[in-house]
Amino acid sequence: MTALLDALILDIGGTLVAEAPVGTATAELEVHLMPHVLDDLESLRATLRLAAATNTAVMGEAEVRALLAPSGLDALLEVVVTSSDVGATKPDPLVLSVVLDRLGGVTAERALFIGDQGTDAAAAAALGMPYAAIETAGVAATVATWIDANAGRRFAAAAAGVSPPDAAAAASAAELHDRLTKPKGALGGLEQIGIRLAGMAGVSPPPVPAPAVVAVFAGDHGVVNDGVTPWPQEVTAQMVANFVAGGAAINVLARHAGAEVMVVDVGVLHPLETADGLLRRKVRPGTASLASGPAMTEVEARQALDVGVEVAEHAVHGGARCLVTGDMGIGNTTPSAALIAAFTGRPAAEVTGRGTGVDDDTLSLKTRIVEAAVQRVAGREPFDVLAEVGGLEIAALAGFIVAGAAQRVPVVVDGVIATAALVTAEALVPGVHAWCFAGHRSAEPGAAVALEFLGLDPILDLGLRLGEGTGAALALPIVQAGAKVLGEMATFDGAGVTEKA
Amino acid sequence: MTALLDALILDIGGTLVAEAPVGTATAELEVHLMPHVLDDLESLRATLRLAAATNTAVMGEAEVRALLAPSGLDALLEVVVTSSDVGATKPDPLVLSVVLDRLGGVTAERALFIGDQGTDAAAAAALGMPYAAIETAGVAATVATWIDANAGRRFAAAAAGVSPPDAAAAASAAELHDRLTKPKGALGGLEQIGIRLAGMAGVSPPPVPAPAVVAVFAGDHGVVNDGVTPWPQEVTAQMVANFVAGGAAINVLARHAGAEVMVVDVGVLHPLETADGLLRRKVRPGTASLASGPAMTEVEARQALDVGVEVAEHAVHGGARCLVTGDMGIGNTTPSAALIAAFTGRPAAEVTGRGTGVDDDTLSLKTRIVEAAVQRVAGREPFDVLAEVGGLEIAALAGFIVAGAAQRVPVVVDGVIATAALVTAEALVPGVHAWCFAGHRSAEPGAAVALEFLGLDPILDLGLRLGEGTGAALALPIVQAGAKVLGEMATFDGAGVTEKA
Repeated sequence: MTALLDALILDIGGTLVAEAPVGTATAELEVHLMPHVLDDLESLRATLRLAAATNTAVMGEAEVRALLAPSGLDALLEVVVTSSDVGATKPDPLVLSVVLDRLGGVTAERALFIGDQGTDAAAAAALGMPYAAIETAGVAATVATWIDANAGRRFAAAAAGVSPPDAAAAASAAELHDRLTKPKGALGGLEQIGIRLAGMAGVSPPPVPAPAVVAVFAGDHGVVNDGVTPWPQEVTAQMVANFVAGGAAINVLARHAGAEVMVVDVGVLHPLETADGLLRRKVRPGTASLASGPAMTEVEARQALDVGVEVAEHAVHGGARCLVTGDMGIGNTTPSAALIAAFTGRPAAEVTGRGTGVDDDTLSLKTRIVEAAVQRVAGREPFDVLAEVGGLEIAALAGFIVAGAAQRVPVVVDGVIATAALVTAEALVPGVHAWCFAGHRSAEPGAAVALEFLGLDPILDLGLRLGEGTGAALALPIVQAGAKVLGEMATFDGAGVTEKA
Repeated sequence: MTALLDALILDIGGTLVAEAPVGTATAELEVHLMPHVLDDLESLRATLRLAAATNTAVMGEAEVRALLAPSGLDALLEVVVTSSDVGATKPDPLVLSVVLDRLGGVTAERALFIGDQGTDAAAAAALGMPYAAIETAGVAATVATWIDANAGRRFAAAAAGVSPPDAAAAASAAELHDRLTKPKGALGGLEQIGIRLAGMAGVSPPPVPAPAVVAVFAGDHGVVNDGVTPWPQEVTAQMVANFVAGGAAINVLARHAGAEVMVVDVGVLHPLETADGLLRRKVRPGTASLASGPAMTEVEARQALDVGVEVAEHAVHGGARCLVTGDMGIGNTTPSAALIAAFTGRPAAEVTGRGTGVDDDTLSLKTRIVEAAVQRVAGREPFDVLAEVGGLEIAALAGFIVAGAAQRVPVVVDGVIATAALVTAEALVPGVHAWCFAGHRSAEPGAAVALEFLGLDPILDLGLRLGEGTGAALALPIVQAGAKVLGEMATFDGAGVTEKA
């Protein structure tokens, strides 16, 4: 499992081993491995499931495995399917379908088929399965090329789909508000929420934005090793387990608000057990330290953006009508402060806070690290800033927000981490903040700076500084109330109530 | 229906008519009405149902009605029951029970029996029914004396029952918070809510304060005739109808929060239709203007306090574990400002606001009226201040809050009207605010002044200025979340999460 792929499916002849001359008798076949094959597959199988799909008129799985065994290749392939086994040859995709069936739990879109023939490409295309032609540099290089070429495509498509909310529907909601049985404007901020929801839904009164999904993106941060927090990085993984078990604050508050929690590993350092409710989309196990260089490569940042888009699209296709941002990552207030400083232009000292409650010395160190990082990205493109000083879960959150906007679904944004993701998203896709509600004003100073910069009023101001999505989940019933007031209140005419003189 | 009584039950001989000499033959009985009887009953029946319960060995209802008809008394009595009809004579309470049955919907506690014999008193006592001996000044005077003697008793009993929350349970909740899987204090104000709920419940973790009941007390205000608002007083009655029909903002927000709405007429000026869900407890149809004299008599203020206590006790006995204050009354920001100024000592100009949105001239007039009213009550006892410059629904809210505290149930307080009731309640029963949560910071300036005076932090600050209980209902899910976090989150030990170094 990586961010974009769960499995590699490999053609054999011409891909893993040299193609035998046409007409060679079975008994005379010899296995000549292509360069790096064993090393490449050994390394790739740490994160991807490996299978083979081969056209051969005369051999079944057992014969192929027997042939490959002496080279060590057989042991690296979890599944081997031949055209003889299934009775159909590529370009018929049946051999690839059977591989997917035998792998179990892998969809066509998340398997990469690598081959060397036009029939290989055609078979993959028939299933909607990604395909790459084997490069002379080998399997690992081929995978890397494919990831480099494809990372960020999902984000780019979502970004291209963002347009403004419907101003006419918003105006209609404002007009309806003035006919409801209350003095004009008496519901204050709740009226503004309803008006914005109408604009997002394109209709007044707007539907109630429910059900909601809280997506908690988890990742680790190399900058922790520079001393920005007293919490050990293993806590990120432990808290992911806590989320999956339902025992964290976000679980309690999401249940209370009737929202579902999805937990997504975009970049947790320590190993995580497979679990229901955990989506494994690790781009890499923790970022590098932003104190000493880029936190991520560009291709890693693009993958993380794509993960966020995937999760938002999956939630909306599953019925979600409201998205809620959540996050977990020991040390993540440091990259958040750096992103907020970089995108708002405010000084590091003004946006860097105590996070989980660090002491004065640590705050001072943290501020210096943020300041240096921000200087390093001065004048660079938003995407470069994200890769250089951001974090994997923050990039995923930015993708999640952009995809929510593209799907025309309200996104309720949590504290400083999500707000950093939102200023990043806004820099990448201007106008995306029009689809967002700020759930609360985090106690972390950068959050207030970012919200002011975006012109968003936070719904709650309860001094929360936990993250996980807690402030947004707590605000969710208020967002939903904004729609219900418009949809359910009587009008002056309807209720026979006299208006003021 | 008045605040304390639904019906009068009257003995006949010695009470309504002169007692005939013992041994007078039926045929020779003559009806000699007691002084004022016809006028008194004619006037009382505008607000109370009238019945008679008489001991007579020889006459049934028909004979008694025939005997009373020529005097006009028969027509004033909705129900007449004699001891011959039921086969038992007072002090046996059967005759009174049958009267209640025939009246329908009237409980023993809300019927006053007026008689002239020890057997009358004994019969009433056997049912738990209030009793008054007829005074020579007549029935109306007897009722007035009884109300004067009894109004405020229910409030006094509730006030005597208020004690502080349990500090040990609160401390235990604070300690539990520090073991939950989050940095210490990271849930900010939500932690404080949970700690306070534990104190109120006397146990940590505290139970979720649900179900909740929102009581909306409605009353009119004579000061409206002095020009403090452009809204006509009939809107109070129209909005009560809207509450009962479920179309007002408070109905929508209470439904959203899973809370029940009770609507209580404590003093609406215009007539209201009987309706399910409307509790009729009218003390008087609107106050007098506080601009020119006392808004209420003392006995009226005491009755209004009692109504609030009755509603809170009824709700809690019916299962409510959280009370929410609501209010409706055109003009009621003026008495609220006067009460807040009087009890906090802050100047009228600082606590008087635009209410539903009045213009500068009206605000100036309103402020002068508040200022003059506050000067008039300087140095007087809290109860006198309430009667002089308060309102019927505000007094009821004060009673409701005190009774909630006495029942050890959290009370979520709404905007400026409820906050005025709370400062009043606190003046009457110091310490009662410890049982209250401030749902929101009303846009009306007096609300913030009152909350600061009481040391209560509002949960929401969304610029609401509607009243009805809307801000409190909107805050209710957050109050409940405060309990759930304590009750449902995993601890560091339980979840195997490492604490910070």
